[in-house]
Amino acid sequence: MLGGPESAYKVVEPILKKIAAQVNDGPCVTHIGEGGSGNYVKMIHNGIEYGDMQLIAETYDILRHVGKMNNEQLAEVFDHYNKTELDSFLIEITAKIFKKKGDDTNQYVVDTILDKTGAKGTGKWTVQEGAEQQVAVPTMAAALDARNISSLKEQRLKAAKILQGPKPEEPNKNINHQEMLQLVKDALYASKICSYAQGMNLIRQTGERKGWNLKLGEIARIWKGGCIIRAKFLDRIRAAYERSPQLDSLLVDSDFSKEMNQRQTSLRKVVVLAAESGIGVPAFAASLAYYDSYRRERLPANLTQAQRDFFGAHTYERIDKPGIFHTEWNAPIL
Amino acid sequence: MLGGPESAYKVVEPILKKIAAQVNDGPCVTHIGEGGSGNYVKMIHNGIEYGDMQLIAETYDILRHVGKMNNEQLAEVFDHYNKTELDSFLIEITAKIFKKKGDDTNQYVVDTILDKTGAKGTGKWTVQEGAEQQVAVPTMAAALDARNISSLKEQRLKAAKILQGPKPEEPNKNINHQEMLQLVKDALYASKICSYAQGMNLIRQTGERKGWNLKLGEIARIWKGGCIIRAKFLDRIRAAYERSPQLDSLLVDSDFSKEMNQRQTSLRKVVVLAAESGIGVPAFAASLAYYDSYRRERLPANLTQAQRDFFGAHTYERIDKPGIFHTEWNAPIL
Repeated sequence: MLGGPESAYKVVEPILKKIAAQVNDGPCVTHIGEGGSGNYVKMIHNGIEYGDMQLIAETYDILRHVGKMNNEQLAEVFDHYNKTELDSFLIEITAKIFKKKGDDTNQYVVDTILDKTGAKGTGKWTVQEGAEQQVAVPTMAAALDARNISSLKEQRLKAAKILQGPKPEEPNKNINHQEMLQLVKDALYASKICSYAQGMNLIRQTGERKGWNLKLGEIARIWKGGCIIRAKFLDRIRAAYERSPQLDSLLVDSDFSKEMNQRQTSLRKVVVLAAESGIGVPAFAASLAYYDSYRRERLPANLTQAQRDFFGAHTYERIDKPGIFHTEWNAPIL
Repeated sequence: MLGGPESAYKVVEPILKKIAAQVNDGPCVTHIGEGGSGNYVKMIHNGIEYGDMQLIAETYDILRHVGKMNNEQLAEVFDHYNKTELDSFLIEITAKIFKKKGDDTNQYVVDTILDKTGAKGTGKWTVQEGAEQQVAVPTMAAALDARNISSLKEQRLKAAKILQGPKPEEPNKNINHQEMLQLVKDALYASKICSYAQGMNLIRQTGERKGWNLKLGEIARIWKGGCIIRAKFLDRIRAAYERSPQLDSLLVDSDFSKEMNQRQTSLRKVVVLAAESGIGVPAFAASLAYYDSYRRERLPANLTQAQRDFFGAHTYERIDKPGIFHTEWNAPIL
């Protein structure tokens, strides 16, 4: 992925293409656009990667605690997921992780790892940039905050003794195993669509503001080669932008909307299951709220605007006529 | 709220105190600390304000659509809330907003306002700064993103025709009115505690890094005078930090933890109710996930760390011995 002047790209293009021709549908390099666009796209890639990893972690949490699955069963589940629409590098390595035992013990390595996630700072840029560009990135923001909360291990050990709620470790549900596997898989895939919709919209918004003339389908294509988020899924994103380069959101693409419509009930059920089991699922919950807000003709934002106009005279627009309005809210009510 | 050298504050202190002595428990000004600390605290105030406003909007959405309440009933509910632990400026003006009819029509003003929320940019700083300081601010981030999604009105109108799910406008629940009022009130208050815990932790973290020597209880006290988030609630925060200036989080304060423990079931039920009704409640859901993650001894972050070590050799810590470890995940499994 390169930014900078197109002329510079032209020079290295043949070499890069030769080295990197490992993806079925073309080399995994392209000229992204002018200026810092290559770096920018790489940054959003990392935000999406945070989202994917957190969604997988939440899936693991539910399967392990609600589903009472051991590592061998989890490995089987993720091996199976990797043969479905979830086929991706991260799902593949997750299955491998569950199989791995330590050299010195007979223990599974994953069970010995401290639950504090590090961060090198690339994920935070996406969240900061989403805020800057006024593009909603709630799934990725939830993933970042999940890492930040995980780092408070010592505080969590104390809080666990004080704060009440259902204990994820104690079975409280009579769950049909097969049904749960399907629900969680659907929720994972649906949330992934929401997350990528956010990421692509952020790239598009910035590209438009900076005049980068980006091709979103091309960006999805090159992510297939070598990137952490490489996945079959990216072909579908590429196809969506080929069908409609000006697509408002992946959510309303003809294929993705069909997939969302098939899975939204499962995502709902998983958020409910987690809430009732005391399992925090920030990224699943943020994805569902994103979906339900985006498909809403009328949000409660009219009240928020009324409040802003009340205390700060920020004015408001109306649904029934054009113009900018202000109300003297404190005037006596007749 | 002032930053800057203490000497400068000393000069204006008597004048400011005279002008501003409108709060029962002391003037609403204080010397926050050195450097930019006064501005910083004002910035976080605005992030908290975004959170409060979004939580109220979600409450309105549920009462209106699940509870089928009209504006007169909503005004009554918020008038009642204002006589409880929720007593605050924002709740007070919300009740007034529901009563207000337009001059030219007999319509309630709130119903005519376009559901697109503006933002002057102060809320985004809190989210960006939370990311920067690695302090989780999910309730406030959800509030910011809710504004960003609200601004996509034209896209939402199209998406509403494509994306399926329960319709909030169609009754799908047999809800006990009285019970729902209590649930929603509890959820609002519990989420408010989560949001303020995030905001205060962000202020403390930055204060410690910058050596500002902040008094968190004092900050809560001065917010009582004139600020948008002024509320009785701030007395409780002040008391919490007086009891324990080094408090990990408001969530584990003796009083607040008791209140959270009493209300966490209601917050859960409201998130479930919203998910099943197709109502996006990003801030309620983010608050619940924050609560459930913070009270968790062991999060699924061990898997995330395993993934990071797998693809990037980022290493990990273990739960059973000190040190930094790395696994050759791809080595053949014996």
